[in-house]
Amino acid sequence: MTDFIQRVLRPERPDWIIRSLLDVDFYKFTMGYFIHRFFPEVQVTFRFINRHPHIPVAELVDEDELRAQLDHVRTLRFRRTDIYYLRGMDVYGEAMFSREYLDFLAGLKLPPYTLDRRGDQYEIQFTGTWAEVTFWETIAMAIVNELVYRTLLQGMAEDRSTGESGLQILYARATDKLYHKLQRLAENPSIHFADFGKRRRHSFLWQQFAIEMAEEVVGQGLTGVSNTWMAFNKDLVPIGTNAHELPMVLTALADTNNAKRDAQYMVLEAWGNLFPQNALRIMLPDTYGTEQFFSGMSEDMAHEVSHAWRGLRGDSGDLVVEGERYIKWLTQHGVDPKEKLYIPSDGLDVEGILKLNQALGGRVQLAYGWGTKFTNDFESCHPHGNEPAVVNGKKLHLTWDQLLRGHSFVCKVASADDKPAVKLSNNVNKATGPVAEIDRYLRVFGEKGRLQQRVEV
Amino acid sequence: MTDFIQRVLRPERPDWIIRSLLDVDFYKFTMGYFIHRFFPEVQVTFRFINRHPHIPVAELVDEDELRAQLDHVRTLRFRRTDIYYLRGMDVYGEAMFSREYLDFLAGLKLPPYTLDRRGDQYEIQFTGTWAEVTFWETIAMAIVNELVYRTLLQGMAEDRSTGESGLQILYARATDKLYHKLQRLAENPSIHFADFGKRRRHSFLWQQFAIEMAEEVVGQGLTGVSNTWMAFNKDLVPIGTNAHELPMVLTALADTNNAKRDAQYMVLEAWGNLFPQNALRIMLPDTYGTEQFFSGMSEDMAHEVSHAWRGLRGDSGDLVVEGERYIKWLTQHGVDPKEKLYIPSDGLDVEGILKLNQALGGRVQLAYGWGTKFTNDFESCHPHGNEPAVVNGKKLHLTWDQLLRGHSFVCKVASADDKPAVKLSNNVNKATGPVAEIDRYLRVFGEKGRLQQRVEV
Repeated sequence: MTDFIQRVLRPERPDWIIRSLLDVDFYKFTMGYFIHRFFPEVQVTFRFINRHPHIPVAELVDEDELRAQLDHVRTLRFRRTDIYYLRGMDVYGEAMFSREYLDFLAGLKLPPYTLDRRGDQYEIQFTGTWAEVTFWETIAMAIVNELVYRTLLQGMAEDRSTGESGLQILYARATDKLYHKLQRLAENPSIHFADFGKRRRHSFLWQQFAIEMAEEVVGQGLTGVSNTWMAFNKDLVPIGTNAHELPMVLTALADTNNAKRDAQYMVLEAWGNLFPQNALRIMLPDTYGTEQFFSGMSEDMAHEVSHAWRGLRGDSGDLVVEGERYIKWLTQHGVDPKEKLYIPSDGLDVEGILKLNQALGGRVQLAYGWGTKFTNDFESCHPHGNEPAVVNGKKLHLTWDQLLRGHSFVCKVASADDKPAVKLSNNVNKATGPVAEIDRYLRVFGEKGRLQQRVEV
Repeated sequence: MTDFIQRVLRPERPDWIIRSLLDVDFYKFTMGYFIHRFFPEVQVTFRFINRHPHIPVAELVDEDELRAQLDHVRTLRFRRTDIYYLRGMDVYGEAMFSREYLDFLAGLKLPPYTLDRRGDQYEIQFTGTWAEVTFWETIAMAIVNELVYRTLLQGMAEDRSTGESGLQILYARATDKLYHKLQRLAENPSIHFADFGKRRRHSFLWQQFAIEMAEEVVGQGLTGVSNTWMAFNKDLVPIGTNAHELPMVLTALADTNNAKRDAQYMVLEAWGNLFPQNALRIMLPDTYGTEQFFSGMSEDMAHEVSHAWRGLRGDSGDLVVEGERYIKWLTQHGVDPKEKLYIPSDGLDVEGILKLNQALGGRVQLAYGWGTKFTNDFESCHPHGNEPAVVNGKKLHLTWDQLLRGHSFVCKVASADDKPAVKLSNNVNKATGPVAEIDRYLRVFGEKGRLQQRVEV
């Protein structure tokens, strides 16, 4: 087993967080292929956003170290073996990527970033060709996350009231907690989940540890992992299809209100053309609200998508309600929901998974995307977690528990060809984009069905 | 750097030598594909042979440990990632292996072995379907070799006159020796070689170490490695095409003398049909003597093979003479030898490489197959190597130096569909097969051009 304590007390120097360009979510390859094929010229900016600004990221992460980690990623290239792996993968059918795209990957160097400190936050932006910039998303997030926790753990090691024993307790409790969760899932063999926790993992090594434990405890219940490096190295199925950035960019590029409303359906059409594989045809309806997504869809498209697509991912809103809506919609279109897949993926933990299984199990196929609460649950693991945290000799206004939990960091497309990009989401608190532009989008898409929900991570 | 001394003093238990089915020479895949396509029903026996019977293998290798290591290999399967790698490899053109063959590999479990002690030697045999048995060759050899050296190193650790310091001297000298050799090659940037040393390596970890050092010291001079695992993990080019077992089996299966003479050409024809890739079309002419191979070849085939094949591998005889013969033969057929590749691969060390380069450099392309003397040169590295070795508390009749050198172990096809298989070679001492059958083959193929040469390894 990895000696997590030693990694804190005697870290490698330099201790690179990202050591392979495969250490990204697999959907970056499927979306990247889509982008490279259909939108090779589009220029975008992705922006790192801390949705919980009371967390003082710039106090917790050393700027030089952050720059060094980001710079290191720019030295990485896909290895010959990585490209062979991507070319030879057949879990979604043979030759899923074109030679042109693999050649593009073989030459890929991640584009530059800009980094500015604004108060106790960092503004990190990535600008360049969409097909290249897109790879930064889960990489930048994993770097900021792991650097935050490294600082906290270092603070624990230096704090006389915790010290090495405190670290041991932290990891012992987190290990036990993870095991307990996995056991609860294992008790219900109908539950299948994929690890979606790469972006907000406690650390690379902890994600690896969590996956290894899941393989032992739940066995076939773990259907795969979103992290391509882990899929490659642990011989698991890489999981992922598409995300909000596709409708966000296409909608930003559309000029008229009608064109904006249509962009989300253009994504579906183009995606379906690029990927004949049923398993990759997963709708993500919530970019501008699920309700308008279904109500605005043409009957032709609804027929096609309900029959010839594998399923739907629910990433915001009440996920039981979203599932019910999908079941009802399938039934209306003469499709047996038991033949289709619903993938809830919003801030899930075991309770949520069990609740969804209770509500929807047996009525639709279910595969859970279990993320941050799988790869990064250290809440209540600190021996005195309700005391103020001390880092770099400085007492903070936040407790250890407030800081050791998963944070709501995202890295989202902010603009495309200099036009602002917006996400509305079913959850008002998950919206991103300039306020004026959000207002415009709300007029275009309406607000029906949107909720105020606490964003956990 | 791997702590080789600690691996001796505190070995892992169990310390499996072969941990992946990729840890085989790449030619097992190219030949295996050929065999699976054209000869799926042929049953063979491969036999482990110690060509230097004064080396008491059974005194040096514990039978239980040997069985455990062989048994462990039978538990290994190709991983999903391994199959993706083989499918996605494009250094020899895309899709070099058929789906049928990759499916076969995905289900492969190595067939059983028989192991009997005969005096101070082991008789190890592998019987079954050719396409399966063939994978044992370099695996069985690497296992016996590494077990021999483990025993010797353990003997050194327990010998008060060597002990831990003795091990340090051994590895320090072997390291320096390897570095010195690589430096000599690096001085001559026209020299290119591939690592062919998997089968007789000192150990898995030492092979890895040698490859890493070669990458640093000679850079592009290292064109690739025969060991597929190392190619996969070190991002190098896997090197290999075909070997003697193809003509040996086809000749064994042929009934008449004429059919036996023709079998070596059938191999060429079928190989050329299976592999349109120029880079994989490498002749191996010495199975029954190079002289008869060329003199007996039809003019049509000579024209085809001289023009449309990439080169020739020289594995026995005087390798300068073999090269000269190839150059002359190419010229006779109107082919510029500078366009073709000669691959000397018989017991090479730096001196031999430099001599060949001196004699043939600039006249034909050269790529050396550097094997045992690359991955296993510990001669004169023991602090008192001319003293009798002591293992398991027993003084042997052989010195440390005699035992620590590379040994002439082979694992050859012994029969095909119950008919004995024979190799004659350009070197009388490299012939294998039953004596009576060798005599018959000598009447069929003649003895012209065969030499008596010391077999180094």
